[in-house]
Amino acid sequence: MSILVVGSVALDSVETPFGVRERVLGGSATYFATSASFFTDVNLVGVVGEDFPQEHTDFLTSRNIDLTGLSKVPGETFHWKGRYGYDLNEAQTLETHLNVFASFKPVIPEQYVDAEYLILANIDPELQMEVLNQVKRPKVVACDTMNFWISSKPEALKKVISRVDFFIINEGEARQLSGEVNLVRAARKILDMGAKNLIVKRGEYGVLMFNGSTVFAAPAFPLEEVFDPTGAGDTFAGGFMGYLANTGNVTDEGIRQAVVFGSVMASFNVEAFSLDRLKTLSYPEIEARYRSFKRMTHFEGVSEL
Amino acid sequence: MSILVVGSVALDSVETPFGVRERVLGGSATYFATSASFFTDVNLVGVVGEDFPQEHTDFLTSRNIDLTGLSKVPGETFHWKGRYGYDLNEAQTLETHLNVFASFKPVIPEQYVDAEYLILANIDPELQMEVLNQVKRPKVVACDTMNFWISSKPEALKKVISRVDFFIINEGEARQLSGEVNLVRAARKILDMGAKNLIVKRGEYGVLMFNGSTVFAAPAFPLEEVFDPTGAGDTFAGGFMGYLANTGNVTDEGIRQAVVFGSVMASFNVEAFSLDRLKTLSYPEIEARYRSFKRMTHFEGVSEL
Repeated sequence: MSILVVGSVALDSVETPFGVRERVLGGSATYFATSASFFTDVNLVGVVGEDFPQEHTDFLTSRNIDLTGLSKVPGETFHWKGRYGYDLNEAQTLETHLNVFASFKPVIPEQYVDAEYLILANIDPELQMEVLNQVKRPKVVACDTMNFWISSKPEALKKVISRVDFFIINEGEARQLSGEVNLVRAARKILDMGAKNLIVKRGEYGVLMFNGSTVFAAPAFPLEEVFDPTGAGDTFAGGFMGYLANTGNVTDEGIRQAVVFGSVMASFNVEAFSLDRLKTLSYPEIEARYRSFKRMTHFEGVSEL
Repeated sequence: MSILVVGSVALDSVETPFGVRERVLGGSATYFATSASFFTDVNLVGVVGEDFPQEHTDFLTSRNIDLTGLSKVPGETFHWKGRYGYDLNEAQTLETHLNVFASFKPVIPEQYVDAEYLILANIDPELQMEVLNQVKRPKVVACDTMNFWISSKPEALKKVISRVDFFIINEGEARQLSGEVNLVRAARKILDMGAKNLIVKRGEYGVLMFNGSTVFAAPAFPLEEVFDPTGAGDTFAGGFMGYLANTGNVTDEGIRQAVVFGSVMASFNVEAFSLDRLKTLSYPEIEARYRSFKRMTHFEGVSEL
């Protein structure tokens, strides 16, 4: 089953202790879509400016990502500039130029309105709601946000949360949104807002998924070389939803395995700048790392691994 | 098989956002021994002053902890005073009074020198080496340390590390000892010092265990109420070694299960001040939480859980 992704397509300038890259391919929808494309067909809705290089369009198309919904309009593409220190856990934003993204009004092409799997990447929650209202009856909706929307549009955001199956945010955002330091209490408050499941991303510490009755904890894959964490969370969500859409298995076990595939995808993505690692990634590598995750986490039945 | 624990027995004054406790039972050997006592017999070697309350001695004895090796000498008991902020991950030490602990020279009673399971809690690495030299042929040796010894006696510490099976330290200590920010590289360097296995404690994020060929990741149990993290690492190590000594199963699977039992014990310990939670804990509660850990981490065979 194909996935519909709505979010940003950007040109990023990134500085880490391991190097600098200027105006490379970025954006939440880009990472989501590319990651999900390893598992299923992806339809992308977003906007770029006239400066968006053809090579990036070609790359996305080569991943079988349908770009019918990607508008090219006069002006410059959304540009984000950030820096990471040695701990690589948090980006320091140096510049944000919304450019053509400032007036982005997502219009879902007619052929996408029956989408069953929908990812609302980090955009204005009012726009996320407009997207939700355009898609007829999605089976699974995942949604991300950021600190800026939590503080500036909490009520609009809560309306979106009440309609999503998987609300996927980072640890600091979960604490900010709930006003609770303790993550278990924070999760309960956010589930009370109506999200069916909450996935809390903790960077190098992995993810925790909460729903009404269970908790699932998945570690991050311990890597010797982390070059650029940009897009790790979006890549996680793309792998997660891609796997769900591929299998259609939304049982507890199917969802957990999707979390692990999301973690696998994120672990690859941080191994190089921008989407460079995903550009060379193969499905057998993904499967091998999934098996490594199982060896790394299971403590019963280990001898069979 | 019984365990020999050598380390500190203390009176702690602790302040957390949830309350204050003055001169309550503490010390690394105390937490280790009490935690391990749920799984096997424990022999404790340490020192206290004349002010050490009889009720604490009675409690330890009630847990079947043999105190033949606990000297009571003129002077005051080791006293630590610390404070935790809301994130509860790191203690701020306000006062350390070594008192009788300053001249502690561990002498292993004759009936303990055949110990097969040995825990070297956080003391001067030169003293840890003296203990190692007094115990004839331990089957499994676990060892902890702290930032103070890493910076002041690195060479003595490295000699100890080269003789231990499980070196158990926290994340910051692993980075400090190795000079590596990246934890995978840090682990490799520490294993190169001769430790057979390295267990890295990450507080609320759980533990990572490294050896030459594999990594095992266990989350911390997500708790709604964390009152006092003091002794969590020692309680972890006590449960870990206690379970190993109980089963004698030092296969990869047995060791992983021991890590989970250690995590279970630590998760209980932080639910109340001092050792208060361990005082009321029952073995069925431990087993139930072990099963919860499995439900929380396994993503294949979930339907059988």
